[in-house]
Amino acid sequence: MPLKLNSKSADFEKSFTALLNQKRDEDRNVDAVAADILADVRARGDAALLDYTRKFDRLDLEDASKLRVTDAEIKEAVASCDQTTLEALKTAAVRIEDYHRRQLPADQMYQDDAGVSLGYRWTAIENIGLYVPGGRATYPSSVLMNAIPAKVAGASRLVMVVPMPDGDINPMVLAAADLCGVDEIYRIGGAQAVAALAYGTETIAPVDKIVGPGNAYVASAKKQVFGTVGIDMIAGPSEILVVADNLNDPAWIAADLLSQAEHDPVAQSVLITDDEAFGAAVEAAIESHLASLGRAEIARASWQDYGAVITVKEMAEAPKLVDRIAPEHLELCVEDPEGLAAEIRHAGAIFLGRYSPEAIGDYIAGPNHVLPTSRTARFSSGLSTLDFVKRTSLMKLDAASLQKIGPAAIALAESEGLGAHALSVSIRLN
Amino acid sequence: MPLKLNSKSADFEKSFTALLNQKRDEDRNVDAVAADILADVRARGDAALLDYTRKFDRLDLEDASKLRVTDAEIKEAVASCDQTTLEALKTAAVRIEDYHRRQLPADQMYQDDAGVSLGYRWTAIENIGLYVPGGRATYPSSVLMNAIPAKVAGASRLVMVVPMPDGDINPMVLAAADLCGVDEIYRIGGAQAVAALAYGTETIAPVDKIVGPGNAYVASAKKQVFGTVGIDMIAGPSEILVVADNLNDPAWIAADLLSQAEHDPVAQSVLITDDEAFGAAVEAAIESHLASLGRAEIARASWQDYGAVITVKEMAEAPKLVDRIAPEHLELCVEDPEGLAAEIRHAGAIFLGRYSPEAIGDYIAGPNHVLPTSRTARFSSGLSTLDFVKRTSLMKLDAASLQKIGPAAIALAESEGLGAHALSVSIRLN
Repeated sequence: MPLKLNSKSADFEKSFTALLNQKRDEDRNVDAVAADILADVRARGDAALLDYTRKFDRLDLEDASKLRVTDAEIKEAVASCDQTTLEALKTAAVRIEDYHRRQLPADQMYQDDAGVSLGYRWTAIENIGLYVPGGRATYPSSVLMNAIPAKVAGASRLVMVVPMPDGDINPMVLAAADLCGVDEIYRIGGAQAVAALAYGTETIAPVDKIVGPGNAYVASAKKQVFGTVGIDMIAGPSEILVVADNLNDPAWIAADLLSQAEHDPVAQSVLITDDEAFGAAVEAAIESHLASLGRAEIARASWQDYGAVITVKEMAEAPKLVDRIAPEHLELCVEDPEGLAAEIRHAGAIFLGRYSPEAIGDYIAGPNHVLPTSRTARFSSGLSTLDFVKRTSLMKLDAASLQKIGPAAIALAESEGLGAHALSVSIRLN
Repeated sequence: MPLKLNSKSADFEKSFTALLNQKRDEDRNVDAVAADILADVRARGDAALLDYTRKFDRLDLEDASKLRVTDAEIKEAVASCDQTTLEALKTAAVRIEDYHRRQLPADQMYQDDAGVSLGYRWTAIENIGLYVPGGRATYPSSVLMNAIPAKVAGASRLVMVVPMPDGDINPMVLAAADLCGVDEIYRIGGAQAVAALAYGTETIAPVDKIVGPGNAYVASAKKQVFGTVGIDMIAGPSEILVVADNLNDPAWIAADLLSQAEHDPVAQSVLITDDEAFGAAVEAAIESHLASLGRAEIARASWQDYGAVITVKEMAEAPKLVDRIAPEHLELCVEDPEGLAAEIRHAGAIFLGRYSPEAIGDYIAGPNHVLPTSRTARFSSGLSTLDFVKRTSLMKLDAASLQKIGPAAIALAESEGLGAHALSVSIRLN
């Protein structure tokens, strides 16, 4: 049974806080294991990669030359894909590229009143490593969402790693990589793949930044190599929050809640409505949908263990609750979604109105589907083109402008006891 | 003796690679200690803070009410500051604020050919924790550089922590906090302060993001709480790379190299020049400056242990070497600094021309002095207003636009085996 909360209840605050603090992550101690694997790959390179791939993926590669997926394999995979799906993938790629191109930041250079030239410029991060999970969570759409912004930013080398348990790979994943212009693909996964990308091996040159989702070992390994390379955010289980009035078709809202629940037994779907009867209708529609869904078992587990229906007295109560949840995905299925959105501060992505189901954003709308989970939308953003560029500050003074602002720098340097700082300015003044 | 490298030498590549791989970080195993402190503060709150402050800072606070620095103390500190220095601090604050205001990103919303409304909007991260080191490295300028971008971004609450070993505090640090509108100041430091900011205690409400430099324990603690809160980059020892031709006054360049060296015995100052004799003259000037510098001992240790003079045949060789070093600070003291800068891709900040010593950027120019160290300029940027905002994606479809792009989403959802995703779209199509 999903949780039922009502803002009129005396214990609402207590129940809502409990919902917020609910732990959905598996709490295994994986750091030590990941650290050992990182150190081993760093020390033994390809040999360690081959060992771990044999052990964890039950894939026996003869030698390091077999780590890389060949052009012939990629060609074969593309040829084996369903044409309609490939076309859909191309449509998605074009739309994602268009959206991310608009995120390219502009350089700036200006001269201020003191005659100081100031500004900054953006350049691409050159070598990008893209982690793609194998097994159940291997999604071609995720390849697009991670690779396209890197390409748009101007990365010169895109390296993909994807584990192939028992040698299996979804051909659409290779097709997606091919479509995005991924330069190298290696059949490795886990902490060992993160190590290869961060430190390099005889076969794999190291990258500058690693992005892409993975299991707990991958997440731990990424966190541990942070500093040697850049990483994207650490993603937790996925979640959706739907705010819906009773003018919606309950069956639509039920489908939206299930689209998140079917990802993972620890995914979370929450409904906020101002009509308790509507909430009950959505619950009934969920049961009805579950009868015919392929992934009903996963979706049911998620909905029963982590689902929630929150009834509020009026929609005006919603924004504060939304901000406390800081959801990854937020659907506003109400008459004035823009008005409601303006009251909300923390959300990874907002889907406005009754015809914007989250799945559209997962695949085709254009914005990135890699979004902050587990309340991290309070301080972080979805993946974007900005994650694949870095900024260099620029400044230029001449004798006259140094004369103007130099004395203040000297005063501050002296107050901090940094004599050479002061000297480097004073020596240039007459 | 600083290293001497010459690009004409047969062993240049080997020596240069050794310089790049030189380890300057202290290699202590601090993670376990930091983890224990984090867990203890999380469990025991204020009581643990008081214990660690007694132990590490030799500061015995009666009870938790004494953790916070009072308004009266701040007032007193400001009154005790030198007026000229305070004025310089205000000048710096105005210039830093002006530069960071220009970094405020713009929202975007547009409608594409399919009638889909797409865009994003930026909002401030609300609660910011600012770590300020105590002791030797307590710099009021760092308070400005960390606090001003947060304020410009619109943070609603700025919480500063600063250890006060033996009860001592540089009054200029409190004055700088006061100038920037810091809302709360606590006299705590180390991993325990990071824990308090991330998890909160009875006295200190938790924040959403922690920024600011600290020692190895602080860096480790920040890395460990990443995910619970946002963090800025992990800063390593500071460094400067000066590219200078023989038209410079060697004494000026020597002062610039020393301004970095005086920070820390493990700071690094490197000169690239196309004239070996000029390099020798700079070395001589360094010796001469050292005779009269207050921090000569630190600067000499850094210069002798980690300094380097690299002679190249021609300046055209410089950009490739610069990119491999990916310096935190880069001075281009040449005739055409803009031309040379255009060839360079990886640097935290570039100081253009002969009248732009790094110290100007440390204090007064306007750009942030928190910059990527240890070759991380390959994938990261200096602190900026962007570090204090987050982006929410926005999308809105109507029945007609969903009809247009919905089928591709259904095809992709079905290929990924996600039936509820497909259903949430198809149920909205006629």
